[in-house]
Amino acid sequence: MKAENFLPAAHDKLLFTPGPLTTSLSVKQAMLHDAGSWHYEFNAVVRQVREQLLAVAGLSRETGYEAILLQGSGTFGIEAVFATCVPPQGKVAVLANGAYGERMLQMLRLARIDHVVVRMPENTPNNPAALDRLLTEDPAVTHVAAVHCETTTGILNPVTALGQVARRHQRSFIVDAMSTFGAVPIDFAEAGIDFLISSPNKCLESVPGFSFVIARREALLACDGYARSLSLDLLGQWRGYEKNGQFRFTPPTHSILALAQALRELEHEGGVAVRAARYRRNQAVLVAAMEALGFEVYLEPDVQSYIITSFYCPEEPWFTFEQFYRCLSDRGFIIYPGKISQANLFRIGSIGRIFEADMRALLAAVAEAMKEMQLEKSEKGA
Amino acid sequence: MKAENFLPAAHDKLLFTPGPLTTSLSVKQAMLHDAGSWHYEFNAVVRQVREQLLAVAGLSRETGYEAILLQGSGTFGIEAVFATCVPPQGKVAVLANGAYGERMLQMLRLARIDHVVVRMPENTPNNPAALDRLLTEDPAVTHVAAVHCETTTGILNPVTALGQVARRHQRSFIVDAMSTFGAVPIDFAEAGIDFLISSPNKCLESVPGFSFVIARREALLACDGYARSLSLDLLGQWRGYEKNGQFRFTPPTHSILALAQALRELEHEGGVAVRAARYRRNQAVLVAAMEALGFEVYLEPDVQSYIITSFYCPEEPWFTFEQFYRCLSDRGFIIYPGKISQANLFRIGSIGRIFEADMRALLAAVAEAMKEMQLEKSEKGA
Repeated sequence: MKAENFLPAAHDKLLFTPGPLTTSLSVKQAMLHDAGSWHYEFNAVVRQVREQLLAVAGLSRETGYEAILLQGSGTFGIEAVFATCVPPQGKVAVLANGAYGERMLQMLRLARIDHVVVRMPENTPNNPAALDRLLTEDPAVTHVAAVHCETTTGILNPVTALGQVARRHQRSFIVDAMSTFGAVPIDFAEAGIDFLISSPNKCLESVPGFSFVIARREALLACDGYARSLSLDLLGQWRGYEKNGQFRFTPPTHSILALAQALRELEHEGGVAVRAARYRRNQAVLVAAMEALGFEVYLEPDVQSYIITSFYCPEEPWFTFEQFYRCLSDRGFIIYPGKISQANLFRIGSIGRIFEADMRALLAAVAEAMKEMQLEKSEKGA
Repeated sequence: MKAENFLPAAHDKLLFTPGPLTTSLSVKQAMLHDAGSWHYEFNAVVRQVREQLLAVAGLSRETGYEAILLQGSGTFGIEAVFATCVPPQGKVAVLANGAYGERMLQMLRLARIDHVVVRMPENTPNNPAALDRLLTEDPAVTHVAAVHCETTTGILNPVTALGQVARRHQRSFIVDAMSTFGAVPIDFAEAGIDFLISSPNKCLESVPGFSFVIARREALLACDGYARSLSLDLLGQWRGYEKNGQFRFTPPTHSILALAQALRELEHEGGVAVRAARYRRNQAVLVAAMEALGFEVYLEPDVQSYIITSFYCPEEPWFTFEQFYRCLSDRGFIIYPGKISQANLFRIGSIGRIFEADMRALLAAVAEAMKEMQLEKSEKGA
């Protein structure tokens, strides 16, 4: 892809990242249409997508939940929950063990919303007992916010256990399920989730352009009058749908048509369980082959998600991440750098329209890249 | 388009709306690629798009301006300017003569930013003399915000004259040029514009998914520390680009690839002046034919833009907008309802990938629809 002329090869480079991801051609082709954002035909698609998102979560409007699409990236969706749902005197306890927990704190600081953090090391899951202590000691906390899979490292946090603690203390529970929704099931009722935020361009295998929030209707309606922003007002967005089936502000029509198609493809694949099995297989193949090549996984297996995996950069003097990345990119594979300061890592995702054969092709390229880098170094040294 | 299966006819219905609009197939086809949002090849596209947006405005980084893309709709971009650029003790004077001016006031209220309004009737342009009086009387006002074309009615406001008043009083000037950028030129220096917000899915003829802000760099850098939101922090967004060429948060990669193509097509068409001439012609053909059919234009010709035109609904008892809309939709044409309370109007846009022949096809359908509605009524009456 050159800047002045986007001319890809036979196929785009495959994305082994936390998203945006590789999607099917049919999902992208769904965007070859210009829909009227006010038109009843488009409104019908929006209504259907909202219902299907609830169904993916095992929920429905009848059981008291609502799906709300919000323009902007996933971060906008999370900030919208805080901006809409925390009362003026509210206080949010954030469970942090990576960049996305820290980002929540940054949002709360800028929005001047009171908050407290329960921080864990980046290789350690959030601790329900620590949350329990905090909630016992700090009655001012009204909301608890957790990240399901911290893609900073790939660690999976125990959201159900955390949510049960929040519920026992009668606090609202907010979950960032950006990188897990559609592939790592959560029982909303068991986890006592009031607001869950996710994105179409992760495990749903669609394109970016908006985020969505699944809200317990009663919790959403209780937020009346708290909104700190017009664009990020989730309740206002929901009321827009209720009024006339439309978005308040221009929706990303093409991205929404893509998600409608992606949801059909999720169903055709066999639903969340079958997709989860594919990702799990991708990740198992990845780890086995990488370990065989001498790479070491950062996290312990019991806390490692099948979404994305962090590996230590080899300490060999001939290895640099930049060169490794370029070698893989030249072969048509995009991986991801690390995001933490405590260890020198890189990351490889196992989600998106990626199958075991793609994973094996990537791993062959990794083996080649390592040889090439080593050889180049020894030639330079000679 | 059925909700369960998006199966369009030979071509999509043509959109005669304020946007999202009809775009070229080649613009939509640019979205048939999954780009890595962190990847250097995609970053090069982003850099190029930002430079080209400045060029469309007759500006450049060298002359002190920056283009910032922001996830979300145009409304998000406007709110981001307020959320980023107004100091804690700042006060915004909003020039309102339609729904988009009123929306600015709603944003400012929710963000608890002090503000004042200079309101005009919906058929009357904002008045530079009234602004002059306000700024003389109210030294607390730090920013002036105006809407270039109020698509509520299609009225064009005198932004250059308004900006000159703001500059004489040394206040910052913010322009919502959502529906005009790329087709109604503004001289930034002459109008003293500090921040201008627009959208790819209007006169640039691309798809929705983000907005962009063109900022005078010095004015942008002066906003350090004012941000009220993380997602809507324009200065933070700009610093992200400066740091590593990347977006802080997942960008709508497909929509950005579409805009890169749309900007090439704007250049191929001959630039802003040639596109403006096409839209002007579309609008002239529209008004002449509609008047011949007995429709009356809401605005006086000297304040009417060539972006969108409001017509009075006929007072004949057989006319309802809903039926008129359906009749045109059945023939493959989407128009827009009115948005004001003082008069019973509907709107027809003249922008997007729409040529004189499309306009004439719409007008033939309007004539047919009128006959059909009249006939149906007289049959029912008979």
